[in-house]
Amino acid sequence: MDSLKLSFIDQLPGPTDCPRSSLLIYDEVLEKKFSRWIKSFPKRYKVRSGETLKEIENFPKHLKSISKLISDQSPRSIQIIAFGGGSVGDFAGFVASIYKRGVHFTQIPSTWLSAIDSAHGGKTALNVGGAKNQVGTFYPAAEIYCVQEVLFSQPQIRADEAIGELIKIALLEGNELYQKVVKLSEPIDHQKIWSVLGPAIEAKYKVVAQDPYEETGYRHLLNFGHTLGHALEAVHKLPHGIAINIGIQFALKWSIEKGYLEESEYQQILQTPIGSCLIDLESYLTPTKIKTYLRAMTQDKKKTSTSKLRFIFLKSPGNPLIEEVSLKELEKFLLKLERL
Amino acid sequence: MDSLKLSFIDQLPGPTDCPRSSLLIYDEVLEKKFSRWIKSFPKRYKVRSGETLKEIENFPKHLKSISKLISDQSPRSIQIIAFGGGSVGDFAGFVASIYKRGVHFTQIPSTWLSAIDSAHGGKTALNVGGAKNQVGTFYPAAEIYCVQEVLFSQPQIRADEAIGELIKIALLEGNELYQKVVKLSEPIDHQKIWSVLGPAIEAKYKVVAQDPYEETGYRHLLNFGHTLGHALEAVHKLPHGIAINIGIQFALKWSIEKGYLEESEYQQILQTPIGSCLIDLESYLTPTKIKTYLRAMTQDKKKTSTSKLRFIFLKSPGNPLIEEVSLKELEKFLLKLERL
Repeated sequence: MDSLKLSFIDQLPGPTDCPRSSLLIYDEVLEKKFSRWIKSFPKRYKVRSGETLKEIENFPKHLKSISKLISDQSPRSIQIIAFGGGSVGDFAGFVASIYKRGVHFTQIPSTWLSAIDSAHGGKTALNVGGAKNQVGTFYPAAEIYCVQEVLFSQPQIRADEAIGELIKIALLEGNELYQKVVKLSEPIDHQKIWSVLGPAIEAKYKVVAQDPYEETGYRHLLNFGHTLGHALEAVHKLPHGIAINIGIQFALKWSIEKGYLEESEYQQILQTPIGSCLIDLESYLTPTKIKTYLRAMTQDKKKTSTSKLRFIFLKSPGNPLIEEVSLKELEKFLLKLERL
Repeated sequence: MDSLKLSFIDQLPGPTDCPRSSLLIYDEVLEKKFSRWIKSFPKRYKVRSGETLKEIENFPKHLKSISKLISDQSPRSIQIIAFGGGSVGDFAGFVASIYKRGVHFTQIPSTWLSAIDSAHGGKTALNVGGAKNQVGTFYPAAEIYCVQEVLFSQPQIRADEAIGELIKIALLEGNELYQKVVKLSEPIDHQKIWSVLGPAIEAKYKVVAQDPYEETGYRHLLNFGHTLGHALEAVHKLPHGIAINIGIQFALKWSIEKGYLEESEYQQILQTPIGSCLIDLESYLTPTKIKTYLRAMTQDKKKTSTSKLRFIFLKSPGNPLIEEVSLKELEKFLLKLERL
């Protein structure tokens, strides 16, 4: 990966750091609170965040409008700034990666999930006919600004939703990050997340650096909690962060069942202040629901019930483990949990 | 650039080199002559070559169809093979570069222009609202097969059209390639082009290797003959190869005017067997036409008449020179030529 300038600042960056000749691609919901800053960019493109923005069907229209805004500039002078959450970053990053075969790209994540996770690591993506992230590029932003006034302006509920990804990266990393994160107690507010944001991002980059283009499989660790999480997200339309939170509970329980994680170690995790924020999955388990989760998983990855998938287990904080499991096994353990 | 397997073979590759599980994206005109080979691929996608194929407007439809054909395969096992000329390679290469963030890509160029030039160097591209190559990626094919039975099946006129790019690379490279190419005499048939194809491609890779991502400007050398060439192509709808041929004549004449190229050296080039294949540009020059060329150039790169552009001059075979010139200067010299 190329060098990255990562900054933690109080207020939105001025013209020196974010030249006003840049094209600002921004989420319309930010217009109210940051109107003056947004309007300081003569070239700006407003989008509505969400999966529709990422649908390939809508891409020609967006690309034509964006092209009109910047086609008078030389490719070397073009900068694209994404100001929004995950979907805005995925979309704008993809545009930046292909426009004139790649122009300067800056991210200003506006949600905790994007500030902790999706803005980092260079994955851009669009959807094809509803199938998520079918196309995309590896194109890390050259600059990322984590801005307090932006992140703190989110509703409190977004902070709650960030807990899942925060616990995920803390359990993967262990060490100091884990020690810091477990001490966070409810209510998890903006200030508390901000206090661990730097080391949480650092921990993600440590994983990404081992496998930036997903060639060795190591980067797959970042999917901890995501196997069941994605299925819950699809079936119950849960917010991503909540679905991942539940998915992590499941991964921990399966790790005990497999003999990788000691029951006592698990209890210790649960007894930390943040451990109490893990959401129990029992209410999501009935035999019928389990069938729909399995169906979502096979559709998601076009797998059959005999297919293997790579599941991330945990031996202890800082010691994850990737193992191939069959969907059959996964179903069996879900059913066992349901009967408990 | 990653390692490339470049092969020169008599017949289309067998299943070991081109696994039949690959997705073949092919030009419909090849169906008649290579029907059996094409049909040996259960997954194949037929396209009509040309700029319409590259238009972003049509991309969602193509991508959805392609996605349907290969979505049951794991990204690691997907291979895309482009079987066609420049537009098919640009399109299929772009698809391969973004599908699941990049899958294995193989090219089998079916035209001399693509075999000599466009299949090599990793540039993929789509058009946006008629503006050529506005988006794309750098994504070199992992394998390229130059296949005699395919290239020799072209009409003779395609060989004539290849002369421009062949003279271009020979003049840029000088040395042995230049000595070989200048000895080619009319009629330039398939066998003669085949005899210099290997070293011509090698010469292109020597330039590309210096500047694979167009960062230093060195790769711009490959635009020798293309400044006026592209304008002639746009205005008179000339085939690319013919337009470049005329563009090279122009670049040589301007090089003399600027004092870079000796008149005697120019005469020597003209007197070689291939030198007689250079097309004179005088018939393309009237004051009105010159205005339209200038307009095409300013539209092409969104420049004004006072804008500078990088023009490639020649001091001697093997000694090109990149210099910034103004469009005004270029117009002045075109008008001078017209009055001669």
